[in-house]
Amino acid sequence: MRRSIFTEEHEDFRKTMRQFIEAEVVPHYQEWYDAGLVDRSLYAKVGDLGVLGIEVPEEYGGAGVESFKFSAILTEETARAGVQLGGVAVHLELCLPYLQKLATPEQMQRWMPGFIAGEEMWAIAMTEPGAGSDLAGMQTTAKRDGDEYVLNGAKTFITGGVHADRVIVCARTSPPLESNRRFGISLFAVDTKSPGYVVGRKLDKLGLKTSDTAELAFTDVRIPAADLLGEENEGFSYLGQNLPQERLGIAVSGYAQAKAAIGFTKAYVEERKVFGTTVASFQNTKFELAACQAEVDAAEAVVDRAIEAHDAGELSAVDAASAKLFCTEVAGRVIDRCLQLHGGYGYMNEYPIARLYADTRVTRIYGGTSEVMKLIIAKSMGL
Amino acid sequence: MRRSIFTEEHEDFRKTMRQFIEAEVVPHYQEWYDAGLVDRSLYAKVGDLGVLGIEVPEEYGGAGVESFKFSAILTEETARAGVQLGGVAVHLELCLPYLQKLATPEQMQRWMPGFIAGEEMWAIAMTEPGAGSDLAGMQTTAKRDGDEYVLNGAKTFITGGVHADRVIVCARTSPPLESNRRFGISLFAVDTKSPGYVVGRKLDKLGLKTSDTAELAFTDVRIPAADLLGEENEGFSYLGQNLPQERLGIAVSGYAQAKAAIGFTKAYVEERKVFGTTVASFQNTKFELAACQAEVDAAEAVVDRAIEAHDAGELSAVDAASAKLFCTEVAGRVIDRCLQLHGGYGYMNEYPIARLYADTRVTRIYGGTSEVMKLIIAKSMGL
Amino acid sequence: MRRSIFTEEHEDFRKTMRQFIEAEVVPHYQEWYDAGLVDRSLYAKVGDLGVLGIEVPEEYGGAGVESFKFSAILTEETARAGVQLGGVAVHLELCLPYLQKLATPEQMQRWMPGFIAGEEMWAIAMTEPGAGSDLAGMQTTAKRDGDEYVLNGAKTFITGGVHADRVIVCARTSPPLESNRRFGISLFAVDTKSPGYVVGRKLDKLGLKTSDTAELAFTDVRIPAADLLGEENEGFSYLGQNLPQERLGIAVSGYAQAKAAIGFTKAYVEERKVFGTTVASFQNTKFELAACQAEVDAAEAVVDRAIEAHDAGELSAVDAASAKLFCTEVAGRVIDRCLQLHGGYGYMNEYPIARLYADTRVTRIYGGTSEVMKLIIAKSMGL
Amino acid sequence: MRRSIFTEEHEDFRKTMRQFIEAEVVPHYQEWYDAGLVDRSLYAKVGDLGVLGIEVPEEYGGAGVESFKFSAILTEETARAGVQLGGVAVHLELCLPYLQKLATPEQMQRWMPGFIAGEEMWAIAMTEPGAGSDLAGMQTTAKRDGDEYVLNGAKTFITGGVHADRVIVCARTSPPLESNRRFGISLFAVDTKSPGYVVGRKLDKLGLKTSDTAELAFTDVRIPAADLLGEENEGFSYLGQNLPQERLGIAVSGYAQAKAAIGFTKAYVEERKVFGTTVASFQNTKFELAACQAEVDAAEAVVDRAIEAHDAGELSAVDAASAKLFCTEVAGRVIDRCLQLHGGYGYMNEYPIARLYADTRVTRIYGGTSEVMKLIIAKSMGL
Repeated sequence: MRRSIFTEEHEDFRKTMRQFIEAEVVPHYQEWYDAGLVDRSLYAKVGDLGVLGIEVPEEYGGAGVESFKFSAILTEETARAGVQLGGVAVHLELCLPYLQKLATPEQMQRWMPGFIAGEEMWAIAMTEPGAGSDLAGMQTTAKRDGDEYVLNGAKTFITGGVHADRVIVCARTSPPLESNRRFGISLFAVDTKSPGYVVGRKLDKLGLKTSDTAELAFTDVRIPAADLLGEENEGFSYLGQNLPQERLGIAVSGYAQAKAAIGFTKAYVEERKVFGTTVASFQNTKFELAACQAEVDAAEAVVDRAIEAHDAGELSAVDAASAKLFCTEVAGRVIDRCLQLHGGYGYMNEYPIARLYADTRVTRIYGGTSEVMKLIIAKSMGL
Repeated sequence: MRRSIFTEEHEDFRKTMRQFIEAEVVPHYQEWYDAGLVDRSLYAKVGDLGVLGIEVPEEYGGAGVESFKFSAILTEETARAGVQLGGVAVHLELCLPYLQKLATPEQMQRWMPGFIAGEEMWAIAMTEPGAGSDLAGMQTTAKRDGDEYVLNGAKTFITGGVHADRVIVCARTSPPLESNRRFGISLFAVDTKSPGYVVGRKLDKLGLKTSDTAELAFTDVRIPAADLLGEENEGFSYLGQNLPQERLGIAVSGYAQAKAAIGFTKAYVEERKVFGTTVASFQNTKFELAACQAEVDAAEAVVDRAIEAHDAGELSAVDAASAKLFCTEVAGRVIDRCLQLHGGYGYMNEYPIARLYADTRVTRIYGGTSEVMKLIIAKSMGL
Repeated sequence: MRRSIFTEEHEDFRKTMRQFIEAEVVPHYQEWYDAGLVDRSLYAKVGDLGVLGIEVPEEYGGAGVESFKFSAILTEETARAGVQLGGVAVHLELCLPYLQKLATPEQMQRWMPGFIAGEEMWAIAMTEPGAGSDLAGMQTTAKRDGDEYVLNGAKTFITGGVHADRVIVCARTSPPLESNRRFGISLFAVDTKSPGYVVGRKLDKLGLKTSDTAELAFTDVRIPAADLLGEENEGFSYLGQNLPQERLGIAVSGYAQAKAAIGFTKAYVEERKVFGTTVASFQNTKFELAACQAEVDAAEAVVDRAIEAHDAGELSAVDAASAKLFCTEVAGRVIDRCLQLHGGYGYMNEYPIARLYADTRVTRIYGGTSEVMKLIIAKSMGL
Repeated sequence: MRRSIFTEEHEDFRKTMRQFIEAEVVPHYQEWYDAGLVDRSLYAKVGDLGVLGIEVPEEYGGAGVESFKFSAILTEETARAGVQLGGVAVHLELCLPYLQKLATPEQMQRWMPGFIAGEEMWAIAMTEPGAGSDLAGMQTTAKRDGDEYVLNGAKTFITGGVHADRVIVCARTSPPLESNRRFGISLFAVDTKSPGYVVGRKLDKLGLKTSDTAELAFTDVRIPAADLLGEENEGFSYLGQNLPQERLGIAVSGYAQAKAAIGFTKAYVEERKVFGTTVASFQNTKFELAACQAEVDAAEAVVDRAIEAHDAGELSAVDAASAKLFCTEVAGRVIDRCLQLHGGYGYMNEYPIARLYADTRVTRIYGGTSEVMKLIIAKSMGL
């Protein structure tokens, strides 16, 4: 069905991104894939395109656009090309909303130029080894010492953690109150070149191979008080405010991956011959791809509706949970079927479908697992 | 997510229908269910409400609305109440489009008053025993004889066939041309009180128990030439023009049934206690219903998008096929899970979920099976 | 794969049953189906065949066979023919084990002749309206009064309840002990011709149309003390002892239905033509049926292993739960796919696949729902 | 359910293997995993255990056992430990059957000592880049030249191809006959140290990371005529004779992986706490694992029945296809659900579930895809 959410301006952006990816990403991608990391220089190039500043207010050098649509197009185009842009999604979709909500004008002025240029890449560090999703049980501490805070502790599962220049770190600045276990957490924008800040091992993941996911360790890292984000001790309330958008982003990603998978598979089955005829000519191939297409059509309807709601300020936590749950499950089913149609080649990482299969698996997990999404939905149903 | 396709006018109509169903349908429904047929008097009541004339042009006494939204609301409200309105859907969604496209002003003037009032109910008869979906292989014939045609043959699977006052019958009026196998079929609006017109046995179906599905037999039925619909011999080209709307209607029906199933089940599990606690309190119940809800949310996004496209004259055959395939499969999955949550009561026809389970099964079959939908989608993908 | 659990004796029995069903059941089946009840005379005919006495000890006139294999063959052959034998399964698989374990020699001598001859049909009544599976919450009471007990209360979901001549009724004979809530339940073999014993309405079920499922009501029904089964007040401990065999029987039934469905479908698709070719010739048909066959092969491996374990006295509660869960889910999946391959005919009750679809749905519910099976399995895993 | 196919001798072997794997494989496994290859020294250790000679006839130094059970135990124990033994499965399950059927006594005497000792590892090379499964379209040629053949061509997807000392290569020795396209293929046991034999790049696969899968290229490789396997030009008929056993092996592997996945997951959920309670304590966890267990129980019934049939010489091509199709699909479903229960850790390759997820995907593809299995089954059904 014709999508109605994009204007000509969006389609121009799509074209630009498509060309950029073809020219600047695809030729190097195998190399980055083997290295487990995109090349650092990519970020400045993405910055030069203006992509990193689209949603940044004009007074700080951005385009001041308040819409998720450009972000969605970026996701769709990278998926379509079978690539990933390393920490760009974290930089834009996870970190920027925190800065928009919490950073003071002084901080914005200080940080945005590097942010927009892709010269200073951002990441975010919440999860700790052992504590998992239980943020209130966090062990990392930041103790006030004059004009500075002294940070100690460790974090894990930090996407973009190897390349990041500045990381939003959650740490405990006060003990929890008896009346409010959530009191006492603060957020800091930590400079990763600070003494005592150590990037631990890069984690070996099933997929997302060009995404540098790392462990971080902090030993007496001194953070200027000027790098505190928002109010001291009130950090817990900031966390999660961005979850609907984060989940919308993952829903879009699931949709985009599934759609891309159909594209890769269609090309493969039309090319590939067995017993003198193309794989595309088998009724099973046609039916499998048609069934996948109908699911992708549904996912498209879901994300388009959710993007519009988000841009209108109406995307609730439940809406986002439902969209994430649905679209990531569609992605799982569709990509599995598409891989199967590739036969043995589907198992080879040189084929994008094999990488997609590994990549997409995490979408049912990160940003809140499918089980957490179900809890949210059930609660909203009064169950 | 808030649905954006309905205006206040639609919501008023929804309220009216909900009240009507509560007052005029629900109290008699068990009786009709046992009889295998709604009461004939229902149609005039539906007509009195103005429902049957909504899409009829004003010059013929209708409201002249060009929108599928009222029809969709009717479907949603009947599903929500766990009832069906017998042949109303066939009358409105299947027959009316033929009349709008093919009937002459004279015919419209003659037929619409009874149509709108619910005094003359319509049905449509295409399928023949033996020929199935292969319409070109049709055996029923209509031979011109003076100012009349003489109809002989038999039809099956005619929904609304017992109550119908006038049936659109496809019959062969000329042998097929060698160059065009589709030539030679004509459509007639046959008066069911004509001599030689016999309603055969009512078919015993898995579900749709209040829908009278019948076999018809024609022996020298004389049809006035004035009841020919469209051009003689060109009937084949008329068939299928309405398929996108018909399939959209089935998609809406699948969505509405699945949504209704969640409602019935939520009420049940909140009421029903086992081992001293409600079924609703089990995590499995919450997760199952949440998973169902996410699927229904997706189906809603699909149908709402498709309805808008249809109203804008943009719903393609593929769009409709994809929506039907997806929504009816969602209905199948969701209703099965919802029935399971009812335990033994889910197997008893006095619970609406048991009837829904049987009813919904046909949505993957009629209006074109899921397999046919896949063929259509595959073709549109160039496969 | 060749099944290794049956000897020549079993295959002879299979042949006998197949002939009997062809001769005595199939010709009358539509009539019984429409009546919602097999004809009473069927039971004596089954008795004449010797089927009802196979597992009855020789001293009471039976064949004294200790094996579930004949029962399994009976299930397979009825499924294969697309029929059901009304209350025979309840009589044999549910009631007989109670009698074998609990009846005194005097009772056996009194009851077995009628049992074996099919002249006195048995059923069992546990569930009460409102109490559901919570047996300890039972409201039906039996008060000792001289040489009799006086029974008051109501039961529901009683399969075979219309035809039954004697029903094993659970009733409370003493209040529960504080230390043991399960104390105080007793079992009685109640003569259904007793004054005050009323067969209420036959329940309208989704499927199992020839199985007479009824509500029962007892008003001062006087039961001779000689018809108490087992020890007074110890009834609770008897309940559930037969559950593994009951669940094995349902597993076999799921397997047999799924296998039968493939048979019906194969015959249909080989016969049915669309667009000039048989439905069987489509790759989708072949793939669907092959996928179904692989599932049925697995179900066969499961039931054959479980039957052997049962005959060896080694079938644990968990083994039976796992077999029931698996085989009934296979049946659900397979029969749904097979119905789909029938197109519109699959929705017509004159085709056995439509009836199977409705019938099989209850196998995931009765004898303990799939959810209960999962609880049992999880517990056995230490979860 | 208690498995009945293993004797005490088998259980002793299981214990030995379990200890060996714990001592000799597990401690080095991460290293091998990172290297993408087990250490060459492993093979001699496996040989020392006597594992490689179990099925080799006694006259050639083996134990002369004719049973698949030891092989099955080996598969189960490696899966249980979350490891793989590189090319051992290919050596034993794929190559040995060819040698047993085709090698002359002279060849057996020459090759078996190295084979049994693990000093000479074998692999098999059928697939060519471009030709895929169409063996008759093979481009690799071997031209007779005196006492030698001269081999030219290329092969791909060769498991164990990096370590192999001798590879069974299929090559065309004569042009196909018009009457018999399959004529003209021969098999050779090629010494991988021969001049002109080049191991190309190791393929980057989704999973099976310690399995060295390689491309091979042959440029004027001279093969002594004494290394021809079987009759010249009759090679095609040899291919496929071993397919039932190969597929049985993959079925066992799917079963063993799924079973292992449950073990890993159970350990994880019992250990892992969220919000102050273990993941194991959630009903969803229990239900998911129970559902997985029931599927694994079914897979066990299937493989045990198939192993017995194979040992009895009765496993047909269809039986093997059905077992492979079923067990690998169970593995896919079960491992996906088990990974999900691990949350974010399930995506980290240091957890065995993440590796299993990637490994198991190929079981639905190699040894014949699920689609090929369905074709075989459908054919056997007369479709």
